[in-house]
Amino acid sequence: MRPTFRKLHPPAGARPGTLVPSPTAVPPRIREIRYGPDGVTDRDVAGPASLTPEAPGDGMVTWVDVQGTGDVTILRQMGERFGLHPLALEDVVNAPQRPKIEDYNDHVLIITRMVRPDEAGELDLEQVGLVVGSNYVVSFQERYGDVLTPVRVRIGEGLGPIRSAGADYLAYALLDTIIDGYYPVLEEISEALARLETRVLTRPGSRSLDAINRLKGQIIAVRRGAWPQREALNRLVRDGSRFISPDVRVYLRDTYDHAAQAVDVLDSHRELVNGLLGLHLSAASNRTNEVMKVLTIMASIFIPLTFLAGVYGMNFEMMPELHTPWGYPVLLGTMFVLALLMLSYFRRKRWIGGDPEDDEDDE
Amino acid sequence: MRPTFRKLHPPAGARPGTLVPSPTAVPPRIREIRYGPDGVTDRDVAGPASLTPEAPGDGMVTWVDVQGTGDVTILRQMGERFGLHPLALEDVVNAPQRPKIEDYNDHVLIITRMVRPDEAGELDLEQVGLVVGSNYVVSFQERYGDVLTPVRVRIGEGLGPIRSAGADYLAYALLDTIIDGYYPVLEEISEALARLETRVLTRPGSRSLDAINRLKGQIIAVRRGAWPQREALNRLVRDGSRFISPDVRVYLRDTYDHAAQAVDVLDSHRELVNGLLGLHLSAASNRTNEVMKVLTIMASIFIPLTFLAGVYGMNFEMMPELHTPWGYPVLLGTMFVLALLMLSYFRRKRWIGGDPEDDEDDE
Amino acid sequence: MRPTFRKLHPPAGARPGTLVPSPTAVPPRIREIRYGPDGVTDRDVAGPASLTPEAPGDGMVTWVDVQGTGDVTILRQMGERFGLHPLALEDVVNAPQRPKIEDYNDHVLIITRMVRPDEAGELDLEQVGLVVGSNYVVSFQERYGDVLTPVRVRIGEGLGPIRSAGADYLAYALLDTIIDGYYPVLEEISEALARLETRVLTRPGSRSLDAINRLKGQIIAVRRGAWPQREALNRLVRDGSRFISPDVRVYLRDTYDHAAQAVDVLDSHRELVNGLLGLHLSAASNRTNEVMKVLTIMASIFIPLTFLAGVYGMNFEMMPELHTPWGYPVLLGTMFVLALLMLSYFRRKRWIGGDPEDDEDDE
Amino acid sequence: MRPTFRKLHPPAGARPGTLVPSPTAVPPRIREIRYGPDGVTDRDVAGPASLTPEAPGDGMVTWVDVQGTGDVTILRQMGERFGLHPLALEDVVNAPQRPKIEDYNDHVLIITRMVRPDEAGELDLEQVGLVVGSNYVVSFQERYGDVLTPVRVRIGEGLGPIRSAGADYLAYALLDTIIDGYYPVLEEISEALARLETRVLTRPGSRSLDAINRLKGQIIAVRRGAWPQREALNRLVRDGSRFISPDVRVYLRDTYDHAAQAVDVLDSHRELVNGLLGLHLSAASNRTNEVMKVLTIMASIFIPLTFLAGVYGMNFEMMPELHTPWGYPVLLGTMFVLALLMLSYFRRKRWIGGDPEDDEDDE
Amino acid sequence: MRPTFRKLHPPAGARPGTLVPSPTAVPPRIREIRYGPDGVTDRDVAGPASLTPEAPGDGMVTWVDVQGTGDVTILRQMGERFGLHPLALEDVVNAPQRPKIEDYNDHVLIITRMVRPDEAGELDLEQVGLVVGSNYVVSFQERYGDVLTPVRVRIGEGLGPIRSAGADYLAYALLDTIIDGYYPVLEEISEALARLETRVLTRPGSRSLDAINRLKGQIIAVRRGAWPQREALNRLVRDGSRFISPDVRVYLRDTYDHAAQAVDVLDSHRELVNGLLGLHLSAASNRTNEVMKVLTIMASIFIPLTFLAGVYGMNFEMMPELHTPWGYPVLLGTMFVLALLMLSYFRRKRWIGGDPEDDEDDE
Repeated sequence: MRPTFRKLHPPAGARPGTLVPSPTAVPPRIREIRYGPDGVTDRDVAGPASLTPEAPGDGMVTWVDVQGTGDVTILRQMGERFGLHPLALEDVVNAPQRPKIEDYNDHVLIITRMVRPDEAGELDLEQVGLVVGSNYVVSFQERYGDVLTPVRVRIGEGLGPIRSAGADYLAYALLDTIIDGYYPVLEEISEALARLETRVLTRPGSRSLDAINRLKGQIIAVRRGAWPQREALNRLVRDGSRFISPDVRVYLRDTYDHAAQAVDVLDSHRELVNGLLGLHLSAASNRTNEVMKVLTIMASIFIPLTFLAGVYGMNFEMMPELHTPWGYPVLLGTMFVLALLMLSYFRRKRWIGGDPEDDEDDE
Repeated sequence: MRPTFRKLHPPAGARPGTLVPSPTAVPPRIREIRYGPDGVTDRDVAGPASLTPEAPGDGMVTWVDVQGTGDVTILRQMGERFGLHPLALEDVVNAPQRPKIEDYNDHVLIITRMVRPDEAGELDLEQVGLVVGSNYVVSFQERYGDVLTPVRVRIGEGLGPIRSAGADYLAYALLDTIIDGYYPVLEEISEALARLETRVLTRPGSRSLDAINRLKGQIIAVRRGAWPQREALNRLVRDGSRFISPDVRVYLRDTYDHAAQAVDVLDSHRELVNGLLGLHLSAASNRTNEVMKVLTIMASIFIPLTFLAGVYGMNFEMMPELHTPWGYPVLLGTMFVLALLMLSYFRRKRWIGGDPEDDEDDE
Repeated sequence: MRPTFRKLHPPAGARPGTLVPSPTAVPPRIREIRYGPDGVTDRDVAGPASLTPEAPGDGMVTWVDVQGTGDVTILRQMGERFGLHPLALEDVVNAPQRPKIEDYNDHVLIITRMVRPDEAGELDLEQVGLVVGSNYVVSFQERYGDVLTPVRVRIGEGLGPIRSAGADYLAYALLDTIIDGYYPVLEEISEALARLETRVLTRPGSRSLDAINRLKGQIIAVRRGAWPQREALNRLVRDGSRFISPDVRVYLRDTYDHAAQAVDVLDSHRELVNGLLGLHLSAASNRTNEVMKVLTIMASIFIPLTFLAGVYGMNFEMMPELHTPWGYPVLLGTMFVLALLMLSYFRRKRWIGGDPEDDEDDE
Repeated sequence: MRPTFRKLHPPAGARPGTLVPSPTAVPPRIREIRYGPDGVTDRDVAGPASLTPEAPGDGMVTWVDVQGTGDVTILRQMGERFGLHPLALEDVVNAPQRPKIEDYNDHVLIITRMVRPDEAGELDLEQVGLVVGSNYVVSFQERYGDVLTPVRVRIGEGLGPIRSAGADYLAYALLDTIIDGYYPVLEEISEALARLETRVLTRPGSRSLDAINRLKGQIIAVRRGAWPQREALNRLVRDGSRFISPDVRVYLRDTYDHAAQAVDVLDSHRELVNGLLGLHLSAASNRTNEVMKVLTIMASIFIPLTFLAGVYGMNFEMMPELHTPWGYPVLLGTMFVLALLMLSYFRRKRWIGGDPEDDEDDE
Repeated sequence: MRPTFRKLHPPAGARPGTLVPSPTAVPPRIREIRYGPDGVTDRDVAGPASLTPEAPGDGMVTWVDVQGTGDVTILRQMGERFGLHPLALEDVVNAPQRPKIEDYNDHVLIITRMVRPDEAGELDLEQVGLVVGSNYVVSFQERYGDVLTPVRVRIGEGLGPIRSAGADYLAYALLDTIIDGYYPVLEEISEALARLETRVLTRPGSRSLDAINRLKGQIIAVRRGAWPQREALNRLVRDGSRFISPDVRVYLRDTYDHAAQAVDVLDSHRELVNGLLGLHLSAASNRTNEVMKVLTIMASIFIPLTFLAGVYGMNFEMMPELHTPWGYPVLLGTMFVLALLMLSYFRRKRWIGGDPEDDEDDE
């Protein structure tokens, strides 16, 4: 099991705003997408300095997509460029923070958790930080690659209302896409549960147990990301924010429902996976029972017979049975009958000839 | 076990309003029921275009019953005809959504979960989406067939106040009927619990375990549908809505109570089914105990006897017992007495002759 | 186990107000008790038509006590006589409803659950519906017999303030009496728990397990009745009602406390009964352990001895031990010593001579 | 196990205010402590009639300390003397009530649960009822003896601000002392947990199991008293009361914190005691494992050897091995080697020579 | 296990403000740090009398850092110097109190729990009490040493805004540093969980069980400190306080998030550690199964063979097989075949040749 909690935190007591580049963080790649009803520009920029200068009032929305948090200087410049509160900058860099939505004077900060399978098939829970201003969204991720390509396509090809809507709609689109990314993971967990149940019933063993526990760990980890996300969205939908228009709030309500559904499903899954553990324990105990039965049947049949054989192997001088010609066949017959009696006893107890519940099962 | 969660979701990041026809969805069958105090018309229509044109003020209520969500075009036309918000349309088509009740400007959207046994006796949890406007209700289901026939009969035959009431009362009647549909399911679960308990006590085995776990899965699945339904109804009853008159709110309070009762009962059932798992584990351990006792009794009686026989089967030259005429009968007698002693020991320990608790049970 | 949930529900989708007489419901017996500061009349009436005509302003309070819900016509007349809302009438007849307290325009409806042991000693959870108006209380029960006799005595003999108080005080007196009826049941459960614990420790077996599970089922069933009752009382005490005077609210606060205490005690009992299950499992595992020890001791002592006997039962020509006169006694001595060694090993492991913890237990 | 719930309740349906003397209740001893900044009088009084007549405005605070509720007449006189509401009087006499704080017109009623070990070392949870008026406090206990002596000393010796403060401060002092009485109990439970854990690991057995369960019962019982106490204090601190001055509210906040801490600690203890049960089960299963290993080792070594001995004990005429002079020693050697092989197999499996985890444990 | 709860509490009923020096408390060391935008003074002081006299309006912030609560006189002088409420002084001295934040007239009292590993690697949960006034913070700890050095460095070297901010910012810096101190502990627990899981799967035993239980105890203890801390911070962030400026509240929101994250992670860990217990139980049952299989295989193979050998060791005169030359080899062959059959039976049952699930595992 990989440790389940690891956080890029500054040394305790560092002053607020201390940025701690993750040892695995990569140098930032910055991409600027500016769009409006009339057009789109989409270009990679070297650093905050190369961003298009602000031009409020031109109706354009800017999405600055920062992937990689490995260069503190650039991140700090980015913070200055968009007037980020030091705490907001710290939150987007020092991942993972608890998912939350916070109102600052000049922007809203949305910390969210994106989930997707990594190359090894393990779940990768990566933090995405969104800073939403009046006409821009800056998104920060620790590593390259994300689930947001469909939003880029919708902007690029002008699908749907996104090009004519504001920065708040973009933020919604990003959030919604991130939350939608939970569904395939939930389905995969659901299928893994079904597969594991079959496996536990047919081939219990320590490997299934390990798989169950790993699945349980995954469910708990995903739920730890999803639950505060639901709470934060709930508060945003309920209380609103200066940077989110009422129209977009209706959309966010939908996103909230999806987040709530994800938590519901994760809770069910958690209960089911606990049930699987019980099933496994029970299956293991059934196996022990099977083993015991074989031993008991073998021993119970042969121990009395061996005793009889032992008796007639004794060397007493006066054992009249030994000298009659029918002694041997009678004894063999007796042994045979005894064995049959034991067998029929075990059959009556249903230890032989099938599971006790296989017969008479006419319901 | 079938996977417990499968959702028709658009690809993550699709723009809101993307409709995803389920692979198993069937082409829509649309039925229009228009009624008022004076009469009813009930006809199948080919598509939204064939619906009776709106005539506000004529006091008629229209119920458009759409079964099957397999044709995106028709659904989209339906959405345009009734001015459905894109998110509302998405919610009724991309099932299953989380049960909820949402206020839009022109209508209330009610997402609810209908439960009924399918042909194979499995529980079928199907989403029913209700769009309630000022004088119409549009209901959407993914597949044909439902539990709503009694409402159609009440409209058709003019039973009760339904013909003289408005669209909100129709929505209540539909909701109430859907929630009432939980009761037979709850009773069936209750009976299955009772049956399983008897079975676990008399014929424990891996098949009962499997049945218990399947029942638990069903309970969890039904509860996942029922719980948010209760919450949504609670909010509706508490806060009201423009489209629901106070009179109908009183009725919805009753529906809320039924939903709450369903959740209560499901919670009890969940606890009871967990208790059954414990009972099963315990019964299995009892069986192992039984097996062990048989083995121990057989072995404990015969092993010492076999040892004695072994002793007198030794070939020492100087074993005086072997040469006395009474050696053999005395040994046989000794063995007999030993066996009796062991038997009486086991009987005193109550391993033979009944369950330890069967005697002296005078309370 | 009897199924734990069975409800007299109309066919799903029946119009609201459909009354469903229970198959076991008996024909109603109606008793009218009218009282005021100056006197009491108490008579059985044949039907609603024979009730004393309403005479508001005469300061009399009327308690109409309807036992048996087997006759829909009479119930419906009763509903008309007192102007009951159709839903209220449905709730008192189609038992069991979830306990609740609902305000209608002309009356308050209180659905509560009365608990008492039936003839077979099983718990009988029967619904009592109270309709409280300005100067009357109508109580509905499904079957004959109740726990309310003390209230009738207090009215009949003019004990306490009941004769000079209003209908709300009568409702309180009935509610309080019903809730007080939980205490003997709680005590009985508490005693059953104590008895079962002793039994599990001394005579574990499948019968105790069954008893534990039955007790657990009872606790859950009673709690399912008590919990919503507490909630409903809480809301009534907090929000008040037009039909309950502030003076009586103080009394209801006390009733609420009793209901809350009942729920607390049931929760404790539920935890304790779960603990009993663990205790039982553990006791069963201890028994298996005992059985195993006996087997192991017998086998470990005699198997090596039997081996030795087997060795000297071999027919090799050249076994010098067989020909010495002291071979036999030396071997017997060796066997004896071996057996003693094994016994002392087991005694040191405390498998013989008492439970490992029985000695040195001086704390 | 003693039954965990026993309440002195009037027969169900008794009119409110019915006082039920407990069968074990003792005749009341009444002690009146009157104090003010200038002095104290402390005397035992025979009954309510002998109390110092009320003299409002003289700045004196009266604490009437009633121990023993065995005499209904005296209690009723006491109620009349202080104008107690019938329900308040019922609550202080018919113990145990649920801990609560209730505002009446003329006084506040505080029902609280005092905990202290009785002579047998069992926990004794006794109800203390406090009636707090403008210038008096009446305290009621069922039995003699309490934890309140320090308050009497503080009054008598004039320690701290108590003599110059009002009746509300006295009530606080009593409450605080009662809640402080939980700490030694919590520590004792904590130590019992630690002792039991050691014992389970070294000497598991049915007696430890019994002790664990008894401790669990104690924790649940204490928590049932502490939890509603915390809730009641929380409400009092939040909402205040006419009879509690703001200054004393600050002190009560502290008392609330202590009650909350007690509940926190009890919750932790409950979880730890559940963990102990798991530990016990596991230790028992380890013991079974030990027993099984001994049996398996003994049987696996000697059964094959016995078989070999049996083979050469056969009486076939043509068994050439029997006639060679080295047959016997070679067989003995083979047996010895076989035994060594089995032993080394078991040692490799770590069944011999220590717990599997005792070696190579270099972490 | 060390007892999990031990509190320095005054004897129950002591008057409020009674200070109880812990038996292990050390004499106080007092350090005064005064700073402003222009400079810092940092000196050890002997007692409250030596503190720099108050000079409001000079813009300096004073941090009085009291380590060691072993001298009641000095503490009491300190309380007088800063006008501490007796309850506040009691709370900082009589540790551990429940973490909380309380508003007094002249200051805010913050009780918090600092966590750090002690020399023995055990977790040390020490209370830190902060008294925050308009221009000073007094911090109290029971023992020497803390996690607050980084704050001292930030003040000393003028890093960040701390020197130009007020006492509220200092309080925030201290709180934040204390909460940040939870992260390394959480990570360590997370790693311990991962290590223990590996160990349980490879080398289960009573030592792992003990380690699991100890870890569980740690998690519960840390959570008991973290949970009320989160609650207190939540209330402070929500309701504010006279002594905390809005700017600093934004920072405290961040601290709250960290506290909430810590609780989330602890909850996950608690569930995971419970899962480990199940895993351990299951692994132990697997081991028993292994032992049983070895026994069963050995016994099942050799018992029938021994029986056969016993038969031909009998001394009947008329056993024709004994006299044929091929009797012996035929019997040996039969035995060999029988053994092979048994072995193949066990192999088919997968008791030999690997875990049942190791084959055919192609998923």
